[in-house]
Amino acid sequence: MFGITPSARLRPSPYYEATLAEGVCAFTTYNHMLMPTSYGNPLEEYWRLINGVSQWDVAVERQVQLRGPDAGRLAQILAPRDLSSCKVGQGKYVPLVNHQGVLINDPICLKLADDLYWLSIADSNIWFWASAIAAERGLRVDVSEPDVSPLAIQGPKAEDVVAHLCGDWVRGLKYFWFREFDLGGIPLVVARSGWSKQGGFELYLRDGSQGTKLWNLVKEAGQPWGIGPGNPNWSERVESGLISFGGDTDGQTNPYEVRMGKYVDLHVPDDTVGIQALRRISAAGPKRHSLGIILDAGDPVSPGFSWNPIYKDGVKVGDLTNCVFSIRVQKNLGFALISRDCVVGDRVQAMVGGVMQSGVLTELPFV
Amino acid sequence: MFGITPSARLRPSPYYEATLAEGVCAFTTYNHMLMPTSYGNPLEEYWRLINGVSQWDVAVERQVQLRGPDAGRLAQILAPRDLSSCKVGQGKYVPLVNHQGVLINDPICLKLADDLYWLSIADSNIWFWASAIAAERGLRVDVSEPDVSPLAIQGPKAEDVVAHLCGDWVRGLKYFWFREFDLGGIPLVVARSGWSKQGGFELYLRDGSQGTKLWNLVKEAGQPWGIGPGNPNWSERVESGLISFGGDTDGQTNPYEVRMGKYVDLHVPDDTVGIQALRRISAAGPKRHSLGIILDAGDPVSPGFSWNPIYKDGVKVGDLTNCVFSIRVQKNLGFALISRDCVVGDRVQAMVGGVMQSGVLTELPFV
Repeated sequence: MFGITPSARLRPSPYYEATLAEGVCAFTTYNHMLMPTSYGNPLEEYWRLINGVSQWDVAVERQVQLRGPDAGRLAQILAPRDLSSCKVGQGKYVPLVNHQGVLINDPICLKLADDLYWLSIADSNIWFWASAIAAERGLRVDVSEPDVSPLAIQGPKAEDVVAHLCGDWVRGLKYFWFREFDLGGIPLVVARSGWSKQGGFELYLRDGSQGTKLWNLVKEAGQPWGIGPGNPNWSERVESGLISFGGDTDGQTNPYEVRMGKYVDLHVPDDTVGIQALRRISAAGPKRHSLGIILDAGDPVSPGFSWNPIYKDGVKVGDLTNCVFSIRVQKNLGFALISRDCVVGDRVQAMVGGVMQSGVLTELPFV
Repeated sequence: MFGITPSARLRPSPYYEATLAEGVCAFTTYNHMLMPTSYGNPLEEYWRLINGVSQWDVAVERQVQLRGPDAGRLAQILAPRDLSSCKVGQGKYVPLVNHQGVLINDPICLKLADDLYWLSIADSNIWFWASAIAAERGLRVDVSEPDVSPLAIQGPKAEDVVAHLCGDWVRGLKYFWFREFDLGGIPLVVARSGWSKQGGFELYLRDGSQGTKLWNLVKEAGQPWGIGPGNPNWSERVESGLISFGGDTDGQTNPYEVRMGKYVDLHVPDDTVGIQALRRISAAGPKRHSLGIILDAGDPVSPGFSWNPIYKDGVKVGDLTNCVFSIRVQKNLGFALISRDCVVGDRVQAMVGGVMQSGVLTELPFV
């Protein structure tokens, strides 16, 4: 682990000061911002998410705002998923693809009004993408970034905490649905959402100057349930089969290869970016698919920064896109982006941290 | 300074192992890759660049390749600078703007052939941008990333080192011109270029598997001139007035605000992205301009991650986009992106690291 040098190219989060006070000790960068990745006690942070409740600075999930009479039209042009039935107050997970059908992001699309949408994005620049498409097609829509910074509250006790903070109405929110809410002068969008499979909410803070105040209100409200700091948890997300765009995808990955086919609607209008390509890929069948790997090695292995090649009978058949020692399974688990010729139960080998490891292919998720 | 957590979203450089061996101790992230920012001896690294020669891992300057019959046409559509006289073997510095005339990158455009261009980019995603424009306009061009990783050799002795390595022909290269060259089996593009004002070259390595080999060949060739490791140097680049896209620019910055007006040709074809907006901005005059600031404070100040507001007579007039203690000037220097009402010689105040500092506006560059 090396130091990261401050730079104005890397925007701090509105929760930065609060996370410093909590003892954050490591970061990653994501959408040109810093995201906490550790508070120094991995096991405590993990079990808090699995059994209790955890609060996360996920302001790096930046918003691409589409506003104007053609906002809905642009959202549908960008998304190869049918948004025609999407209601105000509803969010939908949408794979975004380029004209060749290659994944370029996988945001949550939130419909705030007929003329106002947010794409709550993963780690790639969708402002440039959306504004290029909008301008080239002459659409009446502004593409911008609003002052919005998500704070996630995740874990089985998250609903109790958010209900305590915002009211019992949050218990009625369906997955990815949201409501605008004023928390004593702090403007929020409250959504049932979050990058874990333990359940929870995201509070979209709409005033970056109130980051520390919101963080501390959540912390205080969560005390009866033992809330503490955390972050998107590598072990939990791999156990749960959650894809990280840019980590588990490369410059050739299409949605069908990474278990996102169910979020593609091939009947969307012909002017949807990439839909012709996706129809061809769907008809021909993708060349790769995503499976799990359980390594034989009992000790934690260290995958480093890169993908690691996977071999079967000495031939490269795919890539290990991540690998982590699972706290619940007590084995090294990873995702294989691998030839369709490889199937569950196959024995394979993977180079991990310079060492050849053996393992078996399995279904996702693991847990 | 905090730790940075490994992630497959952050691609290692082909020179990563070599820089570890050199003792790299800090990084930044840039174009989803790690770039060394320190080898632990800032003064030695600085003076080596000013008086001698330094070798830098700048593989983060990734290439956006345009290939196909419409490659030249796409390059001109993207660049509001006249490329019609650009020869094969020539590079040009080009501000890229969106349809509103806002800067989105400032690459070197290298013309390798009539149907092959590289944009050697700063820190934003131009693959998505270029491929969106190309596809929406139906151009016959592939936008991709080739296996290319620049290594910079910078400083007054750089020419001697590169001539020793590649031959005396390099002495005849004009600024931003380049030639393809085979260095004993290592395929290179050798360009007179680099992000300093001390002169030098960039070797564009065209085979990522040979990163360590190339690094060590340069290191060996440079021994007579005392070569050592370095990186884009914050003090030197501020002294020299070099702009960092994304650090010294924001989401509203146009080329005229940051001393790039001389690289804009308003007579380029009407279908050039953003040219109508730039003509309007040029005619009306930009609202901000870029000046230097020399702070009164004699001790080094710490600017952190963010821009810092600049005040004149108690009113906010602009932003301090960077600030560094200059080793040659022995004062704190910074760039002001500031109202056109403010001029050289004005006394201003800036909040830096939580402390109000006084200073004077000045011309750029400082040295």
